[in-house]
Amino acid sequence: MMKGTSASAGIGIGKAAIVEETELVIKKETISDAAAEKERFRAALNQAMEETDALAKDLATRVGEKEAEILNGHLMLLSDPMLTGEIENTIAGENACSEYAIENVCNMYADMFASMGDELMQQRATDMRDIKTRMQKILLGVSSVDIASLPAGSIIVAKDLTPSMTAGINPDNVCGIVTELGGKTSHSAILARALEIPAVVAVEGFINNVKDGDTVVLDGSEGIVFVNPEETVTAEYETKRTAYLKEKKELDQYIGKPTVTKDGVTIELVANIGKPEDVDKVLQYDAEGIGLFRTEFLFMDRNSMPTEDEQFEAYQKVAIAMNGKPVIIRTLDIGGDKEIPYMGLKKDENPFLGYRAIRFCLDRREDVYRPQLRALLRASAFGNIKIMVPMVTCLEEFREAKAMIEEVKAELDLKGIAYKKDIQVGIMVETAAASLMADAFAKEVDFFSIGTNDLTQYTMSVDRGNDKVSYLYSPLNPAVLRSIRHIIQCGRKEGIMVGMCGEAASDPLMIPLLLAFGLNEFSMSASAVLNARKLITGYSIAELQAIADKAMSFVTTKEVEAYMRELQ
Amino acid sequence: MMKGTSASAGIGIGKAAIVEETELVIKKETISDAAAEKERFRAALNQAMEETDALAKDLATRVGEKEAEILNGHLMLLSDPMLTGEIENTIAGENACSEYAIENVCNMYADMFASMGDELMQQRATDMRDIKTRMQKILLGVSSVDIASLPAGSIIVAKDLTPSMTAGINPDNVCGIVTELGGKTSHSAILARALEIPAVVAVEGFINNVKDGDTVVLDGSEGIVFVNPEETVTAEYETKRTAYLKEKKELDQYIGKPTVTKDGVTIELVANIGKPEDVDKVLQYDAEGIGLFRTEFLFMDRNSMPTEDEQFEAYQKVAIAMNGKPVIIRTLDIGGDKEIPYMGLKKDENPFLGYRAIRFCLDRREDVYRPQLRALLRASAFGNIKIMVPMVTCLEEFREAKAMIEEVKAELDLKGIAYKKDIQVGIMVETAAASLMADAFAKEVDFFSIGTNDLTQYTMSVDRGNDKVSYLYSPLNPAVLRSIRHIIQCGRKEGIMVGMCGEAASDPLMIPLLLAFGLNEFSMSASAVLNARKLITGYSIAELQAIADKAMSFVTTKEVEAYMRELQ
Repeated sequence: MMKGTSASAGIGIGKAAIVEETELVIKKETISDAAAEKERFRAALNQAMEETDALAKDLATRVGEKEAEILNGHLMLLSDPMLTGEIENTIAGENACSEYAIENVCNMYADMFASMGDELMQQRATDMRDIKTRMQKILLGVSSVDIASLPAGSIIVAKDLTPSMTAGINPDNVCGIVTELGGKTSHSAILARALEIPAVVAVEGFINNVKDGDTVVLDGSEGIVFVNPEETVTAEYETKRTAYLKEKKELDQYIGKPTVTKDGVTIELVANIGKPEDVDKVLQYDAEGIGLFRTEFLFMDRNSMPTEDEQFEAYQKVAIAMNGKPVIIRTLDIGGDKEIPYMGLKKDENPFLGYRAIRFCLDRREDVYRPQLRALLRASAFGNIKIMVPMVTCLEEFREAKAMIEEVKAELDLKGIAYKKDIQVGIMVETAAASLMADAFAKEVDFFSIGTNDLTQYTMSVDRGNDKVSYLYSPLNPAVLRSIRHIIQCGRKEGIMVGMCGEAASDPLMIPLLLAFGLNEFSMSASAVLNARKLITGYSIAELQAIADKAMSFVTTKEVEAYMRELQ
Repeated sequence: MMKGTSASAGIGIGKAAIVEETELVIKKETISDAAAEKERFRAALNQAMEETDALAKDLATRVGEKEAEILNGHLMLLSDPMLTGEIENTIAGENACSEYAIENVCNMYADMFASMGDELMQQRATDMRDIKTRMQKILLGVSSVDIASLPAGSIIVAKDLTPSMTAGINPDNVCGIVTELGGKTSHSAILARALEIPAVVAVEGFINNVKDGDTVVLDGSEGIVFVNPEETVTAEYETKRTAYLKEKKELDQYIGKPTVTKDGVTIELVANIGKPEDVDKVLQYDAEGIGLFRTEFLFMDRNSMPTEDEQFEAYQKVAIAMNGKPVIIRTLDIGGDKEIPYMGLKKDENPFLGYRAIRFCLDRREDVYRPQLRALLRASAFGNIKIMVPMVTCLEEFREAKAMIEEVKAELDLKGIAYKKDIQVGIMVETAAASLMADAFAKEVDFFSIGTNDLTQYTMSVDRGNDKVSYLYSPLNPAVLRSIRHIIQCGRKEGIMVGMCGEAASDPLMIPLLLAFGLNEFSMSASAVLNARKLITGYSIAELQAIADKAMSFVTTKEVEAYMRELQ
C-alpha cells in the first residue's frame, strides 16, 4: 500500500498502463553473471523484433507497404550480427547491464552514421536510436502507450500528466490515474475530477513499484494505492466502489432544484469546461451556466493555431448549447505550466512568474489576441457570453484588453456583423496585486472571478506543482482567506458579481466561508455541482457569519482547518 | 550605441572581457570554400596548441611537472594526424564549418574512448572533450576568462553573472559590467552597486556585438553602452566620469552626521553586506550598522559547507568590527536563484516559488540550520547581533525557527558558552502571505525588515530576472506600495522596528514615501548610504504626509512614478 495525495474521488480497480514520456535513465549497473545478462539481452532483442515485425505487418495492411518500410529497416538493424555481437561483447567485457551496453553501442553507431552526412545515413542514425529505445524500454518494463487507445479497465500510471497528454484520455476505458508528481490542483488532478476518474497523485517512487499489467487498486478519496493486492483487499474495495457510486447516484435528486440558501439567497452554481464537448456533462449535472471556459485547450494538441472561424464555432456551439445561460469564456491562458509548442514560447526560469496569459496576449495582439476576441464577440450573438481576462496584475492590462475589445466591436459594426453589444468583460483575480487593488478594479470591470489555485500559489509563494513545498499550499491559510474576503467585499461594494472558479469553490470546508463572505457565483467541475448544491441549500448565510468571524480569528491554516472540519 | 537597464551608476571605460559559462552552440553551417575553412581550422588548431603549451609551461613552473602532464596529454591529442585529418575530411567532404567538424569527430572519438571502459581511456575521453571545446572557443572568439585575474581596465561582458562568478570580481581591475540578462535587482546589479562598479544590464544581444579586447564605454546611470566608439564619444564620457566622481566626493560631507529628518525624527541608516570584508565599506561610508548580512555568500564558492566554527568566526568578526552597532544577520537564503551545488538541491520548476530559504533550513535543521544558529548565538556575545529569518509565509515557520533558537540557547547554557541572552529574532517580510498577516506576525517577532525585491516580485507575480515581464516589476506599483504601507503600520502598531533591506530603501523616489509611512530603518548598499542621508535629512516627515496621501490615491505605477518624479 502506498500513500499519495487524494486528487479525484472514487475507487479505481484495473490494470496498470505505464505512460512514460520522460527520457529513460540508463545507468551502468555492474552485473555478476554475464551469460545470464546476455540471455536477458537476447530475450529483449527477440521481443523487440517480434513487436517490430507485428507493427510492420499491421501498418502494411492498414496503411500501406511504403509506410512499413521504416520498420523493416529497423528489423534489418536488429538482426545485424555486428551490432548484437558488439553489445554482447560490451556486456561480457565490462560486466555491464544490457541497458548500458545497448546505450553505448547503439549511440556509437548512431553518431557514426550521423557524422557521415548523407541523408540515408541520417535516417539510419535515427533508426539506430529508435531500436535502442525500443530494446531499453522492454528491458526496463516501460512500454510506449498510446493513451487514446488504452483498453477498458486501464489505470494510467505516469510521472505526471501534461495537459496535452490528458487530452487523449478516454474515460470509458480509464478507470483510475496514479501519478508520482502533482498536487490537488495540478492539471492531472483537475482533469481527473472533470472526467470523474478516481485519481491519486504525488505517490513517491510509484513507477518503480509497478509493471505494465499489474493489478492496481486505488482510493481517490483517501489517496491510497495498492499494487497486486490480496483478493480480500480487492473485494473490500469493490464493495467500497459500489457504495461510492450509490451515494453519487443519490445526488441526482438535486437535479432541477434551485440553488438557494435556507435564508433565501440565490447562488449561481456553474461549471468549468475546457472543450465544447464538456457541455454534455454540464447539462447532465444541471449546472446553471459556465463559470470558466478554459480556451487554451482549443489551442493544444495541434500543430498550428486554431483560426478565428474554428474558435468562433467552438464558442458558438457552447453558447447555443447553454441556451441563454451565462457562459464566461477566459481568453488564452498559456505559459506557466501550459506550453503550446507552435507559439514559440521560450521556457522561462520561473514560468509561473513569467510571460503568460494576458502578458503574452497583449504582446501578441495581432496574431493571437485579436482573432480570439473577434471570435468571442461574433459568438456572443448566439448566447450569453462574457469575456474574462486572466492573470491581471495591473489596471493598465485590463484597460488595454478592454480597449482592444472596443476596437474589434467597431470593426464588426462596420461590417455589420452581429454581437452582444453589452457583453460583460471581467477579470480573474488571482495575483496578490489584483487582490490588493480590488477596490480600483471593481470600479472598472463587470465582474470578478477569483482563481483560488493561482491566488493561493502567489499569496503563499508556492509552486502548486512542487511536492517539496506543497505543505504550504492551502486556500484555508488565513492569508489566502483574508485576500479572498477582501476581493469579495470590494466587488460587492461596487455591486459587481463576484465568482470563484478555482478548486476551493467546491471544497466543503470552504463553501460556508465563501457564502458568509458574500460570494455570488461558484464555478467547479461539473461532477461537483450536485454535491455543492446539496451543501449550499443546507446553509443559512446569516447563521454562517459568526462561524466565518471565528474562522478568521485564527492565524494558522491548521487552526482554521480543524475548526471548519469540526463543523462538518 | 546600445540601450539596456541602468544597474549601477557611474561611467566605465575599458576593454571588453567576455565571460562565458554557457554551453557553446554548435551549428552545422555550410561553407563554400573548403580550402579556406581548412586554413581557418589549422589556425585555430595552432592557437590551441600554443595556448596549451604556454599553460602547461606556466603550470609546470608555478605548480609542478605532474600538474602539467594533463596539458601535455592535450598537446599530444592536438598533434595527432588521425584526428586532424578526419576533421579536415569532414570539412571537405560535408562542406561543414570547422566548429561542426570538430564537434563531430571529437565526440566520436570521445565516445569511443569512453566506451572502452578502462580508467585511462575515460581520461582520454575527457581530454578529447576539453580540446574540442578549446578549439571551438577559439573559432567562436569566446575565451575562457579567469574572472579573478582580469587585468586592470577590464569591462566584464557576460550573458548573466551568477552569484558564484561575481564572488571573484576584483573591483580594482574591473571598471564596468555589461550583461545581456538581468534587471535592476538581479544579483549582477546588486553586486555591481555594492562594489561601486558602473553597470548596464539587459542589453539584448550584446555579446554578438563585441569581441574580447574591444573598447567599451558605458554609462551605468543612463543604461547606455558603446562598443569601439569614436574618440569624441570616449572623450565626452571621460568628462562625464570626472564630473560623476566629483559629485560622489561631495557626499563625504555627510560622513559623521546624524540621520535626522528636518522635524527631528531619527532614522537608522544601515548597510547590506555579503561577506565580513564588506564591513570596510560600511565603515568607510559611515553606515550606522548592518541591516542585512546575506550569509549565503559564506556558503558559496566552496566545495563543502562552512563549519560552525568558520561561520562563528565570520559573524564574530563583523560583530566586533561594528562595535556595538546593530548587525542583522539573515539565516541562509538559498534556493530561488542562488544555487549551492554541494547542498544537493534539485532545480525546481519555479525556483522562486520552490524549496528555498527557511523552507529548506527547517527541513535540514540538523546539518544546516542548527550549526548556523549556534554560530550566530556564539558570535552574539561579541556585539549587537540580531537574527533574521527569510522568506517566511506562515507563523508556524517563524515559531519553529524561534523554538530551535531556544533549544540552541539551552544547549549553550548547559555548556556555559556565552551569547546575547536577549538577542532579537525578526523576519524578512517579502511574501504576500506575510504582508497579509503582518498584524499577527508583529505580535510575535522582534522586528520586520521588508525585502522589497522579493515582495515586489511576489506581489506582481513577476520573476525579477525575466526581461519579458520586467515592465511589471516596480516597487512604485500601487499594490506594492499598499502592501509596504500595511506592513509598516502593523509593525508600528505593535511597537517593533520596521526596516527595509530591499533596493527600494535607497531609491530617491521611494524614500519620501517610506518616511511618511513610518519606516524606522533603511538598509542599502554601503555606497548608497551618504546619498540617502543627504535626502533623508532634507525632508520633514510631517510635510511628507500629504504627498504620500496623494501618491497613494493613484491606481497605476505610471501615475505614482510621474508624481514622485515631479517632486524631486
